[in-house]
Amino acid sequence: MPQSKRQLHFNLFLAPGGHHEAGWRHKDASPHRSLDLKYYVDIVRSCEAAKLDAVFLGDGPVLANNIKYAARVRIEPFTWLSAFAAVTDRIGLIGTASTTYNAPYNLARQFASLDHLSRGRAGWNIVTTGQPEAAQNFGLPTHPVHAERYDMAHEFMDVVTKLWDSWEDDALVADAVSGVHADITKIHPIHHVGKHLRVRGPLNSPRSPQGRPVYVQAGSSDDGRVFATRYAEAIFCAQNVLSTAQDFYAEMKRRVAEHGRNPEHVKIMPGVTTYIGSTQREAECLQEELNDLTQREHSIAEMRRRTGIDLTDHDFDGPFPRELLTMEGDGAQHGRFKVLLDIIDREKPTIRKLLHKMAGARGHWNVVGTAEGVANEIQAWFENGAADGFNLMPTHLTGGFDAFFDEVLPMLRRRGLFREDYEGVTLRDHLGLPRPESQYRGAEITA
Amino acid sequence: MPQSKRQLHFNLFLAPGGHHEAGWRHKDASPHRSLDLKYYVDIVRSCEAAKLDAVFLGDGPVLANNIKYAARVRIEPFTWLSAFAAVTDRIGLIGTASTTYNAPYNLARQFASLDHLSRGRAGWNIVTTGQPEAAQNFGLPTHPVHAERYDMAHEFMDVVTKLWDSWEDDALVADAVSGVHADITKIHPIHHVGKHLRVRGPLNSPRSPQGRPVYVQAGSSDDGRVFATRYAEAIFCAQNVLSTAQDFYAEMKRRVAEHGRNPEHVKIMPGVTTYIGSTQREAECLQEELNDLTQREHSIAEMRRRTGIDLTDHDFDGPFPRELLTMEGDGAQHGRFKVLLDIIDREKPTIRKLLHKMAGARGHWNVVGTAEGVANEIQAWFENGAADGFNLMPTHLTGGFDAFFDEVLPMLRRRGLFREDYEGVTLRDHLGLPRPESQYRGAEITA
Repeated sequence: MPQSKRQLHFNLFLAPGGHHEAGWRHKDASPHRSLDLKYYVDIVRSCEAAKLDAVFLGDGPVLANNIKYAARVRIEPFTWLSAFAAVTDRIGLIGTASTTYNAPYNLARQFASLDHLSRGRAGWNIVTTGQPEAAQNFGLPTHPVHAERYDMAHEFMDVVTKLWDSWEDDALVADAVSGVHADITKIHPIHHVGKHLRVRGPLNSPRSPQGRPVYVQAGSSDDGRVFATRYAEAIFCAQNVLSTAQDFYAEMKRRVAEHGRNPEHVKIMPGVTTYIGSTQREAECLQEELNDLTQREHSIAEMRRRTGIDLTDHDFDGPFPRELLTMEGDGAQHGRFKVLLDIIDREKPTIRKLLHKMAGARGHWNVVGTAEGVANEIQAWFENGAADGFNLMPTHLTGGFDAFFDEVLPMLRRRGLFREDYEGVTLRDHLGLPRPESQYRGAEITA
Repeated sequence: MPQSKRQLHFNLFLAPGGHHEAGWRHKDASPHRSLDLKYYVDIVRSCEAAKLDAVFLGDGPVLANNIKYAARVRIEPFTWLSAFAAVTDRIGLIGTASTTYNAPYNLARQFASLDHLSRGRAGWNIVTTGQPEAAQNFGLPTHPVHAERYDMAHEFMDVVTKLWDSWEDDALVADAVSGVHADITKIHPIHHVGKHLRVRGPLNSPRSPQGRPVYVQAGSSDDGRVFATRYAEAIFCAQNVLSTAQDFYAEMKRRVAEHGRNPEHVKIMPGVTTYIGSTQREAECLQEELNDLTQREHSIAEMRRRTGIDLTDHDFDGPFPRELLTMEGDGAQHGRFKVLLDIIDREKPTIRKLLHKMAGARGHWNVVGTAEGVANEIQAWFENGAADGFNLMPTHLTGGFDAFFDEVLPMLRRRGLFREDYEGVTLRDHLGLPRPESQYRGAEITA
């Protein structure tokens, strides 16, 4: 359904414990309920009542090595999103899944199923997996290097896209009278034989309501940008200031257009964490309250993981030792590393200040202020070529999004910047994305 | 919760279109709804209202080659069962998944998630995948032979069991005051290095309510029986007559005991398809009505797939050409092949009669009669050492189980043979199975 006026898009990035490093220790958090379906269902229903585009689940097939201090329990996206689908009607369901550590046939089936059972609300956040430890859980001698992972990811996309296209839309006949259940002239083996993968197909279920899940991408490394240019329909990114967000937005829209795609069909959605108070001071207090709950050993370990630098013996009130930061090796998280460098070079923070900054949503945009102030900032990014919407990263759950839903969204609605209600049914409808046709439509079957 | 008296167990084997080859063409079937969540939710809720132990989903990672005539669309178990979990409270959720075509870390995560979000209702029907075509969807040069698949399956079980045990039950602390989220002395890497698999672990989520999903097994080949003896907590089997069902039951209980396990903790549940009428004749008419909807080309293709024999030029009213049936090569479905041979040798059917027999639930037990007659047969098997319960395989959906739920189950209840209500919460509670302790309980962490 076409939208008459460009409007904001919002997803809730749902992470057990919330996005602030110490969010799970907040008095409104419920860390004992991190595997409790009812707890999450209440949250997802709140998001649907707020008319958000989607909820979003991160993922990684490895235990976080900071589990002692961090609420980094994983809720596996296919299973949990399917459960959410059964008790909601409209909200999109975006799950992260790896092209490095999944068999494409299995992944294609699970996204097709999620799209079927949710009636067209599935989205796939495509990752190549940044944690090298993952290799050890899958019998690989080493984690493939960044460039190799992206090379595999391109082929993986080709394969799963073909699988999702392998049944033409009208292949399921189900005509009890004639006895024809499927028109097998419209079900196509894909016969993929490539550098990394061999997959015959076809898929073992009909084409799903959206044709394919919405393709979401979050890597902003150079390889990631090339990948996004080709495949992404929504891009999640970490941006801290308007000007660099504008640069990224302009670059990606330009590259997408140069690739022959419609830039309006790629929604750019930075992550944002908000601290909202009835006054600026109250908002700052909320942020300080959370920062005060961070744990020295945990923060040091996080920085070591991100950069290799051990801050144990450093004075936290001294300047961050910029000279120790060298981009070396594969790094595995190029994009995020750059964000960190930018913050240090721009703000020249003390160690404590930088650790607090990273504690709050790991380098994503933090907005601290009144509801009106937050709404103004969001509007400014939206109207000045920096964002098509945002991936909301609440500091803690529940409670971390209440003020945003109750105060900021109504303001944005009054300004005509966010929907009053859903206009369509599928995630593609919400995001204003077209439904792709099967690439096999009308093609001959090859044996 | 202990049961004072031995009682029957029932699962509903949920297959799109039902279990009769032509069930999807029945007037009460809804073949257009084979990917419709509401359609399945209504069925699963009916099963829960009838106090069944579980619903059961088959699976295979390949498109059925009879899709032209058969409603063999696959609904992927992890996603669909998770959706069912969100709208039910008690019924068990058993999903089929392959040890040949899944990475153990991914499978372990998905079953742990299903068990968490359902509060302890997950069961795993462990298969090695019988369809050789599956290999082509996963880049394997050939499908591993039967013995090789079982060899892999044993190692796979070792790995996933360790993963499910890798968090001791009290490893999740989530103490906001102290800041300790997890007690990492109780989270164990598994360090598995074997013939087929290398997996370091640990899992990235806490131990689930049941510890592990209930282990279900359905292969009755020699390799399958060895496997079941060691792992199965419930066994699904295809048995046609009381005497052979008794033999199988006695053999498996004996082997389990010899293995040092408690035979009461292995529930033997043959498949059964019922045709119920207010008179015997009415029940027979229902069966004929469905048999009349079978399609010659489809039935011939099914027999060719099962046996390699092409019946195209044979007289359907002549005897089945037994002499053409030779057990050769890997066969991929040894157990089922034997069932077929037994039927032929015992009943000496015409081709048509055998095709009809196979059309109704592929060689499983068919009971045709009044509700009382069906209840009597079930009681006879239950009380004479042939079954602990049954896997119900309705001919068509919906409608195919109504008479069983409305008439047979109340009779069995009046006889004290089936529960009035659930006594516990988890699938283990329903089946009277113990919750296993983690094998790592109290163990030291190894680096």
